[in-house]
Amino acid sequence: MQIGVIGLGLIGGSVALAARERLDANVTGWDADPAALQMALDRGAIHVAADGLAAAAAASDIVIVAVPIARLADTTAAVLQAAGADAVVTDVGSTKTALVHAVTDPRFIGSHPLAGSESSGIEQARADLFAGAVWYLTPGPSSDGVAFERLHRFLVGLGAVPTAIDAEAHDRLMAAVSHLPHVLANILVARVYEALGGETLPATGPSFRDATRVAGANPALWAQIYAANAEALGAEIDATIATLKVVRDRLDKLEDWQRETETRHRALLESELAAGPLQELRVFVPNRPGVVADIALTMGHAGINIADMSLTPASDGRTGVVALWVAEADAQRARMLIDAKDLEAGIG
Amino acid sequence: MQIGVIGLGLIGGSVALAARERLDANVTGWDADPAALQMALDRGAIHVAADGLAAAAAASDIVIVAVPIARLADTTAAVLQAAGADAVVTDVGSTKTALVHAVTDPRFIGSHPLAGSESSGIEQARADLFAGAVWYLTPGPSSDGVAFERLHRFLVGLGAVPTAIDAEAHDRLMAAVSHLPHVLANILVARVYEALGGETLPATGPSFRDATRVAGANPALWAQIYAANAEALGAEIDATIATLKVVRDRLDKLEDWQRETETRHRALLESELAAGPLQELRVFVPNRPGVVADIALTMGHAGINIADMSLTPASDGRTGVVALWVAEADAQRARMLIDAKDLEAGIG
Repeated sequence: MQIGVIGLGLIGGSVALAARERLDANVTGWDADPAALQMALDRGAIHVAADGLAAAAAASDIVIVAVPIARLADTTAAVLQAAGADAVVTDVGSTKTALVHAVTDPRFIGSHPLAGSESSGIEQARADLFAGAVWYLTPGPSSDGVAFERLHRFLVGLGAVPTAIDAEAHDRLMAAVSHLPHVLANILVARVYEALGGETLPATGPSFRDATRVAGANPALWAQIYAANAEALGAEIDATIATLKVVRDRLDKLEDWQRETETRHRALLESELAAGPLQELRVFVPNRPGVVADIALTMGHAGINIADMSLTPASDGRTGVVALWVAEADAQRARMLIDAKDLEAGIG
Repeated sequence: MQIGVIGLGLIGGSVALAARERLDANVTGWDADPAALQMALDRGAIHVAADGLAAAAAASDIVIVAVPIARLADTTAAVLQAAGADAVVTDVGSTKTALVHAVTDPRFIGSHPLAGSESSGIEQARADLFAGAVWYLTPGPSSDGVAFERLHRFLVGLGAVPTAIDAEAHDRLMAAVSHLPHVLANILVARVYEALGGETLPATGPSFRDATRVAGANPALWAQIYAANAEALGAEIDATIATLKVVRDRLDKLEDWQRETETRHRALLESELAAGPLQELRVFVPNRPGVVADIALTMGHAGINIADMSLTPASDGRTGVVALWVAEADAQRARMLIDAKDLEAGIG
């Protein structure tokens, strides 16, 4: 099998590595940046560094276009022009409607792997990046069935879980699940920055830290994502404004809303993890190297898996809180094991 | 020293424990819930379970009112009526303006410790809860200077860092840092719940999980907090709506905004941690018990402190991503140590 990868960042590089290691494919790569191309060769991600985009596309059974969003449409068109009649072409952009509408070639099927951060380069690429990850496929009305089946089989071969979804539904979902959280994280940073007026942020517990973790992420990339998904993201922002207005007028009557959110939040997390209800344990710990390891090891030895965790240091730098999410069935046992450790003995 | 604690939840119970252990104080407690009162005795948090609020207040040099927000005003008034002429009375409510305006007794100074979760009970109380934590004091124009100084000294004795702040400024800050993040987390859950329409949430990486971690927190408590801080929170919501409208009209031109946010976010986190710039490392790991421990132990042995971390399992349940925040100066060494572990060997 001959694979062409156009754009050798984290995603493209990982596709190349996975195609070689898992499928024993021949991989030809191309990147506009000669340094990235050279590193892809050096890392063994690609067999051949092509002379240009057309050369990489022409020789391949499957071509993956993994360039920045702003260059997706042009690059995909150029690849389709160069590719053979039996080739399959896909992209990995994080929004799909515009491209799928623009490209009506039957050999093209849009796609989007939910894996990795698009902000990293070939240095972070790895063959197992897609292991178990959802990889959305957004075939359009003109997409060829045989091409779809070949792409699907290729993605399974990379270890991914290909999942077909309508392009518009995909973009609405990403707007809600990913793009709106980034917008709101940015706003929270602005509000707090203004409220502090130059004062130091007090140690406020996990709510602010967690809520703003993605604030200001990779500006060049995220500006492109916002722009590419402007329609769906705009609709999400409109809905958010509408809800904020309702909330603002009922600030003294929000218990039902809070309760409904609790139920929905739990339902979402449980559906994601598909591993039964979780329970949160909060553990106060001395904030020194090794403490988290100690707790995690204790859970590991007891066969208790930590589904999620967050560590928040206290302002004194000597103590902190670890929140652990474990299966409800394990929660009591986990609590007893932690209590038995007498962690506070380490706190002065 | 004779201390009275009215309301024996996490905060009240921890004040009691700390006052005994750190200051060798005599502690009298009262709680409307007989079970909480009994557990406070059983845990050794209080010496004496008072017959009623008045009895606990009358005998004490310092009285801490740690009841739910909705009962703060009435309870504080009753405590002041029963307390001696030289007593100092404070509360621990998470909003301050309304109470500080309502109570003009010179013996009263409002306060708010930034420690613990207000949702937990006496079971979670501990003597070191306030170690290094900011404890805001909001004296009003009628507050007595001697009373303020005594309360300040007492809080230092508990291990806290008392910090005076204007009540209105306090409520504005909490609205931005804590209450608005809860509102926005709730909205994100609603948006995603609607976008999914009953479908399963795909494994989306950390942005949605982190952004919604506090969604639907303790409905009874949070309904009270929203209501108590309605004015400041309303202003924050108005400002959020205004910004969302601007963002919505410029979705294709947000790179400068994203960049400004990146700078401010970094400045906020650095001011909070006061430990130099941090760098994020993302580590792909097999998602089995013991892996996080292994990484954390490796950091611990190398003397590298993990300032913050988040673990996100992939949808296959077999792999995941650990994000670690370490000092920039340690980042390269941490990366090398992690790479040397060859963690992916565990992934099938």
